[in-house]
Amino acid sequence: MFDYKLLVALAAVVEQAGFDRAAQSLGLSQSAVSQRIKLLEARLGQPVLLRAAPPQPTEVGRRLLNHVQQVRLLERDLQGQVPGLQESRLPERLRIALNSDSLATWWPGAVAPFCTRHGVVLDHVLEDQDVGLKRMRAGEVAACVCAVERPLAGARSEFLGAMRYRALASPAYVVRHLKPGAPVEALLQAPAIVFGPDDQLQHRYLAALGLKGAFSHHLCPSSEGFVRLLQSDLGWGLVPELQVSAELASGALVDVYSGEPIDVPLYWHHWRNGGELLGELTRQLSRAVRQLLIH
Amino acid sequence: MFDYKLLVALAAVVEQAGFDRAAQSLGLSQSAVSQRIKLLEARLGQPVLLRAAPPQPTEVGRRLLNHVQQVRLLERDLQGQVPGLQESRLPERLRIALNSDSLATWWPGAVAPFCTRHGVVLDHVLEDQDVGLKRMRAGEVAACVCAVERPLAGARSEFLGAMRYRALASPAYVVRHLKPGAPVEALLQAPAIVFGPDDQLQHRYLAALGLKGAFSHHLCPSSEGFVRLLQSDLGWGLVPELQVSAELASGALVDVYSGEPIDVPLYWHHWRNGGELLGELTRQLSRAVRQLLIH
Repeated sequence: MFDYKLLVALAAVVEQAGFDRAAQSLGLSQSAVSQRIKLLEARLGQPVLLRAAPPQPTEVGRRLLNHVQQVRLLERDLQGQVPGLQESRLPERLRIALNSDSLATWWPGAVAPFCTRHGVVLDHVLEDQDVGLKRMRAGEVAACVCAVERPLAGARSEFLGAMRYRALASPAYVVRHLKPGAPVEALLQAPAIVFGPDDQLQHRYLAALGLKGAFSHHLCPSSEGFVRLLQSDLGWGLVPELQVSAELASGALVDVYSGEPIDVPLYWHHWRNGGELLGELTRQLSRAVRQLLIH
Repeated sequence: MFDYKLLVALAAVVEQAGFDRAAQSLGLSQSAVSQRIKLLEARLGQPVLLRAAPPQPTEVGRRLLNHVQQVRLLERDLQGQVPGLQESRLPERLRIALNSDSLATWWPGAVAPFCTRHGVVLDHVLEDQDVGLKRMRAGEVAACVCAVERPLAGARSEFLGAMRYRALASPAYVVRHLKPGAPVEALLQAPAIVFGPDDQLQHRYLAALGLKGAFSHHLCPSSEGFVRLLQSDLGWGLVPELQVSAELASGALVDVYSGEPIDVPLYWHHWRNGGELLGELTRQLSRAVRQLLIH
């Protein structure tokens, strides 16, 4: 068997984003955590962590993290049958990668009954919907919500439904930047709001209008900040309808052009041998999203 | 003079979080960007980047990035006096580190008139209020909103005001987990919501009630997600009053104990020789926060 003391130290350093906090979370000294990582590296004959801030797992480190995730889920099943085996009494944690817009809209309501029934707490890891799978590949999360359908080897993916995005701005912004009769190219000069470097929705919207090339934009990696910047007349951007139903009804936000919305499909990725707990969460999510997402 | 082609390549790799996107943003091939970084490292005789994903600046890399930030701001001043000097026609970008709760509440309204008047777009970099300064020390941002008063060498800090946080939960959560007459220790068993590993507000609230030690918690690195998890009866947590005035008024969220709120002071940090633009932003923020934050 592997020496799980060493693997748990590795997982703690990555999950807690540092040796100091990893030591705290494990109730060890920082030097004890360092020694465990060094011992693991000596056994493997190669590094498992890049000592950056925060520490990054190497390729082999990622594979080990993946393995720890899966063992934890299997342990949980066994614990249901053989109580008392678990060392600590803190509730089970599930680490899940998802996009910020899901966390800000449909996710909490969909997952709440599951957490309450099973006494599970969640570590949410935010990633844009096009790249969330890399966290799962990296072994940092047990499951992932993202826009990519194709599952990783050893995993399953299921269609959850789509989120509908509309290109919106405040009426004052539209009056200032997009005068009636102005050519559609005016959108390239009018500042946009983009969630982050991985957010391609604004690019896709412009491309659908036949517009290419660089455009002026603010970067705002916060779903709520994004909507507040729109309301402060600072830009236009693509927002989930779910998030701004009140603002659309009151006219505080309006469509910049009468264009097609963009529907972003969301898939639920989970390890095939992820245990009973992950299976139960999967079943519950499939039911809950029927009302919340577009099918 | 330094060779700014090389420094701009370094800045692009860090700001765009990768060689590939850095190349795109500079209109170069990826190998051209790599060569510039290698040439810079050959001249310095030491690495400027750790090749992690995303690439991290080394100590000397950070000093160079700091320098690039300040030169950019000085160039902007000169450009006002000597138009036509600027190579590209895209609007000026200011990179600013701030906490998610500021971005989700008072920041957009406070900064909007400045952006509109000066045609500036913003890159927001999210960091918890206790650690935002590290982004400025790392040379990644021109200014920073954080809870630490002491400025870096070469920088100034100004008090903006305080954000008031209250420990809140949904009425259903309170009924389920915090029965009337239950001892205050019940809070340690009732799941909390914590923004991320750097968020110590829940710890401080528990410590003020005389409670110590580990407590069960969800991690949710999204301001809007945080409030939605509270409303989905999943936990208690400290939320800015500014963000939930409607929920407090309607009774959708209530205080978990009649305890004192926590006021988090916010300071504005900016480089002393940061140029006229940063000076103008500083003046405008000081005016705008008078209505928005607690003094």
